[in-house]
Amino acid sequence: MSAADRRAALVAALTERHLEGVFVTTLVNVRYLTGFTGSNGALLVPTSGEPVFFTDGRYRDQAAIELPDVDHVIGRDLVGGAAHRMTSGRWAAETHTLSVDAHRSLTGRLDGVELVGADRVVESLREVKDDDEVDALTRACDISTRALEQLLEGPLVGRTERQVGRDLENRMLDLGAEAIAFETILATGDHTAVPHHHPTDRVLAQGDLLKIDFGARVDGYHADCTRTVVLGRADDWQREVYSAVRASQQAGVDLLRHGADVAASDVAARASLEASGWLDAFTTGLGHGVGLEIHEDPFIAASHAGKLSSRTVLTMEPGIYVPGRGGVRIEDTVLVTAGAPEVLTTMTKDLLEIG
Amino acid sequence: MSAADRRAALVAALTERHLEGVFVTTLVNVRYLTGFTGSNGALLVPTSGEPVFFTDGRYRDQAAIELPDVDHVIGRDLVGGAAHRMTSGRWAAETHTLSVDAHRSLTGRLDGVELVGADRVVESLREVKDDDEVDALTRACDISTRALEQLLEGPLVGRTERQVGRDLENRMLDLGAEAIAFETILATGDHTAVPHHHPTDRVLAQGDLLKIDFGARVDGYHADCTRTVVLGRADDWQREVYSAVRASQQAGVDLLRHGADVAASDVAARASLEASGWLDAFTTGLGHGVGLEIHEDPFIAASHAGKLSSRTVLTMEPGIYVPGRGGVRIEDTVLVTAGAPEVLTTMTKDLLEIG
Repeated sequence: MSAADRRAALVAALTERHLEGVFVTTLVNVRYLTGFTGSNGALLVPTSGEPVFFTDGRYRDQAAIELPDVDHVIGRDLVGGAAHRMTSGRWAAETHTLSVDAHRSLTGRLDGVELVGADRVVESLREVKDDDEVDALTRACDISTRALEQLLEGPLVGRTERQVGRDLENRMLDLGAEAIAFETILATGDHTAVPHHHPTDRVLAQGDLLKIDFGARVDGYHADCTRTVVLGRADDWQREVYSAVRASQQAGVDLLRHGADVAASDVAARASLEASGWLDAFTTGLGHGVGLEIHEDPFIAASHAGKLSSRTVLTMEPGIYVPGRGGVRIEDTVLVTAGAPEVLTTMTKDLLEIG
Repeated sequence: MSAADRRAALVAALTERHLEGVFVTTLVNVRYLTGFTGSNGALLVPTSGEPVFFTDGRYRDQAAIELPDVDHVIGRDLVGGAAHRMTSGRWAAETHTLSVDAHRSLTGRLDGVELVGADRVVESLREVKDDDEVDALTRACDISTRALEQLLEGPLVGRTERQVGRDLENRMLDLGAEAIAFETILATGDHTAVPHHHPTDRVLAQGDLLKIDFGARVDGYHADCTRTVVLGRADDWQREVYSAVRASQQAGVDLLRHGADVAASDVAARASLEASGWLDAFTTGLGHGVGLEIHEDPFIAASHAGKLSSRTVLTMEPGIYVPGRGGVRIEDTVLVTAGAPEVLTTMTKDLLEIG
């Protein structure tokens, strides 16, 4: 789907809400609607007439290349440029991210305009991925899991968390990632009990758990995957915890289907942990949408009232964290379809005993 | 300086403004005032009484370790937690970053409180670095320039922009950087004309310019350095452009002194480019503060009315960009003192002809 098609879908959503248009200031939404990859830009999308893109002088040439089909206004004052094009009627601004000061600057320059919240209208469109997006996400996930499979061929024991984390990142870049999707979480021993551990100089040792939360970025799209393995033979406790997380994760994944309640997968994954007696040791969220952002709509929660749609991509990532002892997390990036959920991070979830 | 000392300086600034306190929601400001390195947190700092830190359940243990001396409130609703502790009088919120929706949620729960903008009060404190910050910045700059010096020992010609960029990043990590400060800009040939070029698979060739804008991150602090070299013997055009940029950069650096107008270095660097006839080919800003953020206050501009203070750290980065032909940028990270500016990125600025 081209950026123009995405803008057409946005215009349809705005028209339904009887809006004259929207001023898009959330940078990742601007990218989604235009292809612009710079660090400063905004887009005015009227329901009738042509969109206008605003950026500063640094991006003059880049905008000409990336947005050949959209009019540009180059200048420092993006808000001012938009304000004088919003001449009457009801317009939306992205009040969930727009700062109070920028909003005040905008409203101060409007006359006869009613400014309302955009109510995450672009984020809603972004929840359903088009073919190009699914393709980029698939490639990002494929690179990620191939890199991990290579890494686990070893050697691992005797190297530090930092060394092994960097090794994995370099493998993703060698396999064609444009960047890593986020700072790799790689933890061993009791560090695995910390959900978001930063790699240290601790040396990987025989018998330890090794938990790796990582991903590649391709064309702006993020993969998100966690695997936990044992270095050597797993002991009974490690097997028990792993098995509880795996059952919970599978229960959650199974409900990532078109038409299902978003809350259902949360309920199912928690029920599984409750049944195995480990629910109290689960302290994070269960999952989130993933795409141009590593965390984006929809966020999986029991309180989420919505339903899932085909072509939404989410993570499912239950874990058990026992301070001072250790932890396990298993996470996949999953494509929602009308049928069975399609796991994009295809690597095995059998308990691996490495070396 | 401890986080408690920084909070004391903040309380003094708030007291001067007759405020009951400030609700700090800008994450990097929260880090500055507490040492918290997680991704979700806020801090309420009253002028009388103790500060309170808010985060969600993921960071319960991390907060206990990183903020042993500050009371924590763990929960999803950071704004709500703060609101019921703001009981009367005049409080500040960080309206330059706080979203319209979060601000509305906050004001809707306040009674008898006047809420005003914080006017970048924490950013102002952050402009003047303490000993620990100068130390971290010095180490980050030292790692950066050592890595580049190693890289330039070659080989370079025949490898791609991406390969050489990754090589540099790995050298910084090997030398002790916790991460790279930002995605490396590495450009060769006519790509050097693009101020913020993403590395591609173009192969470095004899006779080309090679422009590298890069840096290491240490303890959260960012280095920012650009050097441009010639692969082989420089031709007359390359020499002319390089010499014009170098003169401009030196003119700008020379005015980064305690008590000088921020605008003065902008004026001087531009005047130098005008004198050499290249001002029209300079299309970016001249520099910015650097610290916990890669771009932070103060930003160098002719319109900036402020003066520089000792212990402020800024970049100075003029360039010449000729589309289709090439470009040169030279950038240092500089510590302002009462005497001569202290360049932290100590690598030579002589024109290097490599290989």
